[in-house]
Amino acid sequence: MSKIYVTGLGPGAKDQMTIRAKNVLVHCPVIIGYTVYIDLIREQFPDKQYLSTPMRKEADRCRMAFEEAEKGQDVAMVCSGDAGVYGMAGLICEIGKEYPDVEVEIVPGITAASGGAAILGAPLMHDFAVISLSDLLTPWETIEKRLRAAAEADFVICLYNPSSRKRSDYLQKACGMILESRDPKTVCGITRNIGRDGESCQILTLDQLKDTKVDMFSTVFIGNSKTMELNGRMVTPRGYKDV
Amino acid sequence: MSKIYVTGLGPGAKDQMTIRAKNVLVHCPVIIGYTVYIDLIREQFPDKQYLSTPMRKEADRCRMAFEEAEKGQDVAMVCSGDAGVYGMAGLICEIGKEYPDVEVEIVPGITAASGGAAILGAPLMHDFAVISLSDLLTPWETIEKRLRAAAEADFVICLYNPSSRKRSDYLQKACGMILESRDPKTVCGITRNIGRDGESCQILTLDQLKDTKVDMFSTVFIGNSKTMELNGRMVTPRGYKDV
Repeated sequence: MSKIYVTGLGPGAKDQMTIRAKNVLVHCPVIIGYTVYIDLIREQFPDKQYLSTPMRKEADRCRMAFEEAEKGQDVAMVCSGDAGVYGMAGLICEIGKEYPDVEVEIVPGITAASGGAAILGAPLMHDFAVISLSDLLTPWETIEKRLRAAAEADFVICLYNPSSRKRSDYLQKACGMILESRDPKTVCGITRNIGRDGESCQILTLDQLKDTKVDMFSTVFIGNSKTMELNGRMVTPRGYKDV
Repeated sequence: MSKIYVTGLGPGAKDQMTIRAKNVLVHCPVIIGYTVYIDLIREQFPDKQYLSTPMRKEADRCRMAFEEAEKGQDVAMVCSGDAGVYGMAGLICEIGKEYPDVEVEIVPGITAASGGAAILGAPLMHDFAVISLSDLLTPWETIEKRLRAAAEADFVICLYNPSSRKRSDYLQKACGMILESRDPKTVCGITRNIGRDGESCQILTLDQLKDTKVDMFSTVFIGNSKTMELNGRMVTPRGYKDV
């Protein structure tokens, strides 16, 4: 029985990939993914059959994976970050119902929350909420409700998809909502191009974040009420030091 | 200048470790960590100087790392999962102020939310909140507030430290609070010993979870209102399929 490995490549798709993910890529003759991710790994694994579909054609890409697997070949379906966090794992499980003979394994990767936190310092030492600002598949009212709830309950907040051409003011709107219950001096961080050329990060206040433009390659972190800037790092204390 | 690499080993500390984490362990002559994690890697990297302190002595362990680094040796400070999620990264950054000559790099790992999600299926396809039920360093009122907020705003919820000997009824209490705003039939999951011998998972309803005992090696997932059980997997749809 052939198998699909839904594989998170981690940020940048090089040494932040897990050993398991690398072994999967070595093993599978067929690798399927969005063009940008394929390009990240093609050089490392040249002797593979690479298949792709454009952005937004996720369901087609999944069916392509099952069809290749039905031909008897093991398939790696790759995503950046973690396939299990806003990734392809869910759709593969849903479409998998139509292909009962194909086995599916999810191979987790480092998601942008973990990868970005490591660059900034240690913002995720305490309870946190991960929220996507993309309203492509989610009503904006739901996103608003979650932003407000997370802000009021003093979660550290990690924002995925904080901006795109069509949504250039969404981060500003999100910061406005969070500011209804949070100190404007709350320590925040922006990471960009995690694990890739041009990787960068910036620490700033919530007030400043509100008026900062970010791009679609960014992940945004909003600290909780205890988060501080320490030697240029964003750190949320857990409390061990006082124990 | 010597360097401390605060390194997440991922679940199980074998092939779910990143290539970067493995390279760090190969490179560093000194490896420091809680005994349980050290035991997981000692066999793979036998020719190292291993140092440890008991549980709860986290600050001592960090100072030990800085003192070894000041002697001129690169040090790997290891944690299971991701050092940046309820891990040692924060304390190392805090204590690092006292040792300005030692460089620190955080090497992220697969945290239990990602590792557990992969075993269950795809529960984290949409916005989620990570909450620790340990009140060792956090007032229980804060935990309650976050549980209620996350439940009301329909986040998928991932619970770390859902139980211990002293807190055997905390998961029950947490489920009770979540049930104030959520359907008793909400799809939930429990993962145990992620990436290790005896790895297992179970899918059940929120109502059933309330009366289920879990141990300290478990991570608990509570779905959002759209999460479903699909062929024995816990899946939160993102919506792609309808696009």
